[in-house]
Amino acid sequence: MSAIITLTTDFGLQDAYVASMKGAILTVNSKATIVDISHSIEPQNISQAAFVIAAACPYFPPDTVHVVVVDPGVGSNRQAVVVKTPVAFFVAPDNGVLTYAITRALEDAHFVTRGITLDDATQIEVGEVVEAVSATNRRFWHQAVSPTFHGRDIFAPVAAHLSLGTPFTEFGDKMKSLCIFPTPYVHSLPDGTLLGTVIHIDRFGNLVTNIRVSELPKGDIAIQAGKHSIAGLSQYYAEGDGLLATIGSNNYLEVAVRNGSAQAYLNARIGDEVRVKVTPPEAQPNSKPPPKDTADTP
Amino acid sequence: MSAIITLTTDFGLQDAYVASMKGAILTVNSKATIVDISHSIEPQNISQAAFVIAAACPYFPPDTVHVVVVDPGVGSNRQAVVVKTPVAFFVAPDNGVLTYAITRALEDAHFVTRGITLDDATQIEVGEVVEAVSATNRRFWHQAVSPTFHGRDIFAPVAAHLSLGTPFTEFGDKMKSLCIFPTPYVHSLPDGTLLGTVIHIDRFGNLVTNIRVSELPKGDIAIQAGKHSIAGLSQYYAEGDGLLATIGSNNYLEVAVRNGSAQAYLNARIGDEVRVKVTPPEAQPNSKPPPKDTADTP
Amino acid sequence: MSAIITLTTDFGLQDAYVASMKGAILTVNSKATIVDISHSIEPQNISQAAFVIAAACPYFPPDTVHVVVVDPGVGSNRQAVVVKTPVAFFVAPDNGVLTYAITRALEDAHFVTRGITLDDATQIEVGEVVEAVSATNRRFWHQAVSPTFHGRDIFAPVAAHLSLGTPFTEFGDKMKSLCIFPTPYVHSLPDGTLLGTVIHIDRFGNLVTNIRVSELPKGDIAIQAGKHSIAGLSQYYAEGDGLLATIGSNNYLEVAVRNGSAQAYLNARIGDEVRVKVTPPEAQPNSKPPPKDTADTP
Repeated sequence: MSAIITLTTDFGLQDAYVASMKGAILTVNSKATIVDISHSIEPQNISQAAFVIAAACPYFPPDTVHVVVVDPGVGSNRQAVVVKTPVAFFVAPDNGVLTYAITRALEDAHFVTRGITLDDATQIEVGEVVEAVSATNRRFWHQAVSPTFHGRDIFAPVAAHLSLGTPFTEFGDKMKSLCIFPTPYVHSLPDGTLLGTVIHIDRFGNLVTNIRVSELPKGDIAIQAGKHSIAGLSQYYAEGDGLLATIGSNNYLEVAVRNGSAQAYLNARIGDEVRVKVTPPEAQPNSKPPPKDTADTP
Repeated sequence: MSAIITLTTDFGLQDAYVASMKGAILTVNSKATIVDISHSIEPQNISQAAFVIAAACPYFPPDTVHVVVVDPGVGSNRQAVVVKTPVAFFVAPDNGVLTYAITRALEDAHFVTRGITLDDATQIEVGEVVEAVSATNRRFWHQAVSPTFHGRDIFAPVAAHLSLGTPFTEFGDKMKSLCIFPTPYVHSLPDGTLLGTVIHIDRFGNLVTNIRVSELPKGDIAIQAGKHSIAGLSQYYAEGDGLLATIGSNNYLEVAVRNGSAQAYLNARIGDEVRVKVTPPEAQPNSKPPPKDTADTP
Repeated sequence: MSAIITLTTDFGLQDAYVASMKGAILTVNSKATIVDISHSIEPQNISQAAFVIAAACPYFPPDTVHVVVVDPGVGSNRQAVVVKTPVAFFVAPDNGVLTYAITRALEDAHFVTRGITLDDATQIEVGEVVEAVSATNRRFWHQAVSPTFHGRDIFAPVAAHLSLGTPFTEFGDKMKSLCIFPTPYVHSLPDGTLLGTVIHIDRFGNLVTNIRVSELPKGDIAIQAGKHSIAGLSQYYAEGDGLLATIGSNNYLEVAVRNGSAQAYLNARIGDEVRVKVTPPEAQPNSKPPPKDTADTP
């Protein structure tokens, strides 16, 4: 059993909230190794937190306990849950904040989730690959529970008890489904064009799309972002020249600007469309960007 | 003896200051568990640091060593102190930064401090419940001491030696009083109205007042903040509708906005007055907020 | 062998990048103590990172492994290196980010580097005091290496293996020189005046120059910053009155404002000139600042 506990919250770093959770963890398990994923999630931005925890968790040792507290419904009747995937545990409110962690665990186990249920579903069935229990056993909670701070009084001590080896099933009743939010689908047009979506923008202004490297068409491609067309993929950020497309560190297609911000350059937002077109051999652009006088460069 | 050391500073995270303190701690005690409370205290904002450390410290294991370095007088003749309360140790400059930690420890031990001494006092006697020594024994300092960085050269190594089990009294001479700053008093009017004060604003824009849950009048109440009146308490943030009042996670009355910022909504500042009125039964408002056309909603 | 690993990056705290590196470290060495130096280096600001790691590293236990990832050339053919100085290990791209750490290690060993090679050189020879190997042995890398994230897939696991005691020379071939950037030289004029440069501005707005305390002339001095002249040195920030000069915690001359920001007061930038003049005895200013009506105060 790993004694590593990670924390992902929207609590920021100026208040005592994060530290109070760490104190609550260390009070139960003084040997726990606590790692901050991020506390700079935008207040109540569940989808940002869902992206960040799913990007980080594959790189931690098995059985790491990931606590995710972006919890606008704290105190209400939304469930607190403990989720077990093939590689990690998660302790979180059942509000969709584990959407990517859950769906990728299912996809990795060859359960097909993308394009089938996620556009509309708000509940996903669990049980075999992904297991879940409600965190209702008060024996693992802090003695007094503030209705406004379950992170400190429920999630933190539950995670600490998990890290001590308490069996997963002791925390509460088995759940049959978990809440997820609809994630954008990668659409495939008849001519092979992929329509993807920007699902995350990082601190460098790189635009992370939902298009996986495994979905990209074989052969030469052009990537269209806003009014700009990018010919082919760069291997890395420094290879490109100005606006470029590359495969990011989580194996998703990214749009970036060398030594700059694609977000600023394209005035981009989460939800923007990114297209991947198959380039016909005759019109195959070379690896240079289009000259400045073409219509689609500024 | 706990080997947990927490750090609260106004050093920010862009420079080497915090890391230098951690290096200095690990040089003395390589097994110490170091926990950041916050390094985003506004530069030289002693009262913000005092609030944050007092909010976090109750959730740490007994004997945790809390280092608090917000120290505009570094290098001058202000004392460096080691303070021992029933639950923790503190290493800090004697400049008021432990005001809430000290006064709450005294209140918890049924020493009456609120409303008696704190409005005017700048020194509070210690000795029985709260003990203090000056951190003058150079044996526990870094060999060379920069006059501009006692955090690294005095506070950090002193805390590390404390975490190794060095007896509290070896660090310097017993002190009879500590510096505190005047904290606002909760005034009680003849009709039962409480006049409190916003003493902290958190990253969500929640306004934390100095009114404790135990001070609230029995029965129905209305909370007045700025020109707005809030009928009754919400159990949690998601229960309310727009502007709401609730009991925060440190048992103080808070004014909040559901999924928004009360600070922005009310244009509020630290020091603003918040009133709690007893609602006469005949005029008892229902739990809904007042209609938009009343004078005290925008 | 120390199991302390520090991290200095420009990754910020809102994404999963830093946490992914920590997970990669803990996967190799679950007992490692990971300390953040800073993740708020400006994107791709190599010289800022070089300053910060050099300021922090002297305060860590010997054999600490410092990982520095400010890496605009990630994926290109710039080398990844492991550097060994008399007090620590460094794992970083060979892009100048270790400039101050390397040159100070050489200076401390009485190799004269300042004013001789650094104004022009972009390579510095290593071998005796400072040793380096390229981090090319893939046995210590993550199995799959993203061309856009060597921090997670190369630097982090290499550092973790170093912290486990793997001999330095196993990571790759010995290198004969390392990349450094030109650092500004302190010029000495015939009348004894020193011309220095602001090389860092901290979060308080203190201006850190490249003038070491050991270079300051004996006797009375005046420090000129922008149009302002400061008479003599203050011992610490609280001693001065308005604009002041002091010796900062890393033994460099600093220009500061008591309870304020010298950066804002002087509208200062990195690269600005700061002069130290020897004050002739007849015109020796007293320790008070010049009266308000002199030309060089606002």
